Amino acid sequence: MERISSNASFGGRQEVWEHHSTLLGVTMRFGVYLPPQATEGPCPVLWFLSGLTCTEQNAVTKGGFQQHCARHGIVFVCPDTSPRGEGVADDPGWDLGQGAGFYVDATQAPWSTHYKMHRYVVDELPALVAAHFPVLDRHAITGHSMGGHGALVLGLRHPQRYRSVSAFAPIVAPSQVPWGVKAFRAYLGEPEDRWTAWDATALVAEHARKDPILIDQGANDGFLDEQLQPTRFVEACAEAGQPLQLRMQPGYDHSYYFIATFAADHVDHAARALFAGDR
Amino acid sequence: MERISSNASFGGRQEVWEHHSTLLGVTMRFGVYLPPQATEGPCPVLWFLSGLTCTEQNAVTKGGFQQHCARHGIVFVCPDTSPRGEGVADDPGWDLGQGAGFYVDATQAPWSTHYKMHRYVVDELPALVAAHFPVLDRHAITGHSMGGHGALVLGLRHPQRYRSVSAFAPIVAPSQVPWGVKAFRAYLGEPEDRWTAWDATALVAEHARKDPILIDQGANDGFLDEQLQPTRFVEACAEAGQPLQLRMQPGYDHSYYFIATFAADHVDHAARALFAGDR
Repeated sequence: MERISSNASFGGRQEVWEHHSTLLGVTMRFGVYLPPQATEGPCPVLWFLSGLTCTEQNAVTKGGFQQHCARHGIVFVCPDTSPRGEGVADDPGWDLGQGAGFYVDATQAPWSTHYKMHRYVVDELPALVAAHFPVLDRHAITGHSMGGHGALVLGLRHPQRYRSVSAFAPIVAPSQVPWGVKAFRAYLGEPEDRWTAWDATALVAEHARKDPILIDQGANDGFLDEQLQPTRFVEACAEAGQPLQLRMQPGYDHSYYFIATFAADHVDHAARALFAGDR
Repeated sequence: MERISSNASFGGRQEVWEHHSTLLGVTMRFGVYLPPQATEGPCPVLWFLSGLTCTEQNAVTKGGFQQHCARHGIVFVCPDTSPRGEGVADDPGWDLGQGAGFYVDATQAPWSTHYKMHRYVVDELPALVAAHFPVLDRHAITGHSMGGHGALVLGLRHPQRYRSVSAFAPIVAPSQVPWGVKAFRAYLGEPEDRWTAWDATALVAEHARKDPILIDQGANDGFLDEQLQPTRFVEACAEAGQPLQLRMQPGYDHSYYFIATFAADHVDHAARALFAGDR
């Protein structure tokens, strides 16, 4: 582990670290915000999964989460969105390959060599974070777009791990929209029934959580109709008994200006679960 | 005037506009945040001047000012830091020429053709903003590093225009530090007595304001000792009777993480003057 940067921020520190991932077979970076409370004792963790084309930097520099995590005493971890580098399979499109890992474990060549972002985010990186930073084994998860898909899928698949789930403009039904179909066909192959384990709208039927999921969605998001389609998830949640709060936000688009505007609410949502019983 | 982008942000809109500057002889961009209150009626304006190498984008994407301007109802304008483009004089160094206008009106060739950032920020851009956006003729000014120098100099030279002044890690005495000496020698020439009109530490002797100036300075800022030297301004203000609050912030560096952390306090400082008598 090597520390790439460390900047004081809202009384804590925003750091970026680099490490060799044995699981992914490449060097990976991640962002970690340590709130001021982390100097006094271990803190719970909020995971943020970014969207297509992003690295760990986007949420770190533009999300504005630090101030809210400082207010609650939450460690905020931002992984990268895929393995990267020479020798890592890639695609000419920005919606597949490097920068577009989709938080699945790829089974198809050539992707299966390095693309194991699900296990990386759920197993390898949390172990590393626990070994190096003052964190409690209490986790919440959120994310944006492709990372919102990741947050929903990981939250539904691992209810014991993640005490709360939220998402900004998530791809809720990747099996049924162009971005997801392209990625799943490459990473998971066919038949399509292999995809349901990685699709929140399909998963929720058998994996409903007890706690409410919070989703913010910009009503002026250019990807809303073709790629995001949150009403698919609304219907699936209703059928499955999954409590869901979908907030359609008039005028908002798909950008980090949208994320920063509602970051406080998502950190508050996580904090209620992370500190339940403590306060 | 052409609108380059418009994003909903904290109930208002963050926009970027492009226009032909007749004063500078080039196309210029600026950021303007319109708070939600601007849809109801005109709002006062807070100007943010950025530092070396920056464009209008840095404060717009990383400063985190929108939420605080939305809270108060303040329009937030971020000019670029110099004229740019082919045919505009430049220097191989990042601390002179394009991205480094130093908010002066250059008198020396080749700079004097385009480098009139003082008049651009004080005259041309405010007139354009007043013509196109719902703003009151009430202004406050702040800035970072080279832009902190700009905020202090403009605030001292134009006390009637700017109702309050603050700065993040400003170059307080450009005539006496490497960045400033290089820029002033190029833009203003010699003898050095031409420089005092553009140096806050020199200006304050004859131009003290009645209202207190707020300065935040990171104690771990790598430029502190060689380029920033805020104690020079502290001494000059004490001698001139200029009220000054210099806050040395332990652990903070020169980055936008530092700026974002204290942005709320600088917007509050501006708001007290901008709304004095209203509330």
